[in-house]
Amino acid sequence: MKHSLSLAAVVTLAITSLAVPPAADAQQSERPAPTPREIADAAPASEWTEIAPDDLMVVTLAPTRSGEERQIVIRLMSEPFAQGWVDNLRTLTGARWYDGLWVYRLVDNFVVQWGDPASDPESGETPRPLPPGIVTPPESNYIHRPGPGAPQADPCASDAFSVIAICDNFAAAAGFREGWPVAWNAHSIWPIHCYGMVGVGRNEAPDTGTGSELYAIIGHAPRRLDRNLALVGRVIEGMEHFASLPRGHGRMNTYEDTSTRTPIVSVRLASEMTDPPRFEYLSTESDSFAHMADVFATGKNAFYTVTAGDTDVCAVPLPVRRIDK
Amino acid sequence: MKHSLSLAAVVTLAITSLAVPPAADAQQSERPAPTPREIADAAPASEWTEIAPDDLMVVTLAPTRSGEERQIVIRLMSEPFAQGWVDNLRTLTGARWYDGLWVYRLVDNFVVQWGDPASDPESGETPRPLPPGIVTPPESNYIHRPGPGAPQADPCASDAFSVIAICDNFAAAAGFREGWPVAWNAHSIWPIHCYGMVGVGRNEAPDTGTGSELYAIIGHAPRRLDRNLALVGRVIEGMEHFASLPRGHGRMNTYEDTSTRTPIVSVRLASEMTDPPRFEYLSTESDSFAHMADVFATGKNAFYTVTAGDTDVCAVPLPVRRIDK
Repeated sequence: MKHSLSLAAVVTLAITSLAVPPAADAQQSERPAPTPREIADAAPASEWTEIAPDDLMVVTLAPTRSGEERQIVIRLMSEPFAQGWVDNLRTLTGARWYDGLWVYRLVDNFVVQWGDPASDPESGETPRPLPPGIVTPPESNYIHRPGPGAPQADPCASDAFSVIAICDNFAAAAGFREGWPVAWNAHSIWPIHCYGMVGVGRNEAPDTGTGSELYAIIGHAPRRLDRNLALVGRVIEGMEHFASLPRGHGRMNTYEDTSTRTPIVSVRLASEMTDPPRFEYLSTESDSFAHMADVFATGKNAFYTVTAGDTDVCAVPLPVRRIDK
Repeated sequence: MKHSLSLAAVVTLAITSLAVPPAADAQQSERPAPTPREIADAAPASEWTEIAPDDLMVVTLAPTRSGEERQIVIRLMSEPFAQGWVDNLRTLTGARWYDGLWVYRLVDNFVVQWGDPASDPESGETPRPLPPGIVTPPESNYIHRPGPGAPQADPCASDAFSVIAICDNFAAAAGFREGWPVAWNAHSIWPIHCYGMVGVGRNEAPDTGTGSELYAIIGHAPRRLDRNLALVGRVIEGMEHFASLPRGHGRMNTYEDTSTRTPIVSVRLASEMTDPPRFEYLSTESDSFAHMADVFATGKNAFYTVTAGDTDVCAVPLPVRRIDK
């Protein structure tokens, strides 16, 4: 059954940094409601879902000047969304095509972009040739339309799409499906541009993106991009390595001095690695996730004395954690 | 008269970096609707409002390793909001109290925090003594309640509060007042936590904040903070210098190694400077602002072929520009 919950805003993506109020975390024992982290930590193992190694893309950037290693882990989008592009990403990764390219564009409160800047015909650069098998899916693949008569013909009425439904200015409602933030109307459903979501850059025409340029959201959710671009994943670890890069001030907010681009050392699927990291997320269809969201909406504590009363979908974090080997 | 518009999501704060689609800005002449920047640029001078020098706080951070200067300009909150705290900020600035302190806390997709980390009693550090005249306003000042019988007794019905009203999950509606994003219900109105908004850090009790610790929002709007903390301003230039700082991994996401804090060289009001910068913003009560928002909601172009249909208040940018001397 679908619950229509009032959900409170939370503020970070990963469970390792769930919402903490500015300058106060004392006296947890006096809090009348458990924190999201406490709820996630107490969730039974059966409510956690491991992400398949073939769905984990590990991006290694060159170290910082002070020698800090920078690894970013992206979960690749689940079916039925973004079909074609996700296959491209696995092909490009398998061909080591991204290795030696760069993070080359940053727009504050909008996107970080990486891959081959020469994919943009206006760049004046020569693109790196794509390996065989890369497709250019049509823009109709930006959304999913369940077939007529199918159980999900009305996504809003279907358990399969979301346990919770959140008021949304951009759709009939929004919620989560298998860990993905989604929005829907009576005829279609689509993943949405929350913080950390990864999409396919393209040229002006909607059917020009392959995966040779990728972007991630580094600011307030730019929902205007929904259904206009292909979302192919979400950063589940290391987002700060993208978000803390210097912003660009050249054409289209690329770096004017190309020597300041951040090199991509390697991109690998976890399934290709000899010692791959493993991750699991708190099922967005679980009771604990619904409880967590509800506490955020209605819970008070010594710090938050006024409840938010509700949330927006992009303010609800997905608890993600590493699985110890 | 209040208009209830459908507004489209835009993605950046300052007009110098208004929304540009990933990897495409060609063929502007073919666009059926003007861009937000075009609308703002075409707005008559009478629709631009200069910000008073006493409302501009200029924060200078130590240069980057590569010698880049970092200046951040904050517009201080207008009456009737945040009374008491804004006076504190002017007092602290006048006493040069912030000079030599640090940016010391960063939580990805949440906040950057600066000032005196010893204000937190859990820090174990000794606070810098406050100058005379600093007050600790009560939490009732987080919101504004127009007096009974006053023209603004019903903010939702008053022209004074917002030209546009946007659906909002956290209030009766949201919009803008004199350039500030606000939300309201029948009895009160309050500024809200959009990207770049600046607030007063405090300890656990709501009436413990003075301005000795300040934070700015660097991610998706954490609306749960609304009415729980005092908003005292918004960054109008240089936000990237905050947002691109390394995230903290110590207690409460402060820096474990305090030597990696970013020093604050100086904080000055423009009214104290011999060669102050001047800024103006596009009046949020102007026709051009309403037009800009409407185009974002309903406009299409060669890149955005699907309209958002609406927006959320924090996705609407405030056009701000420097005034040439």
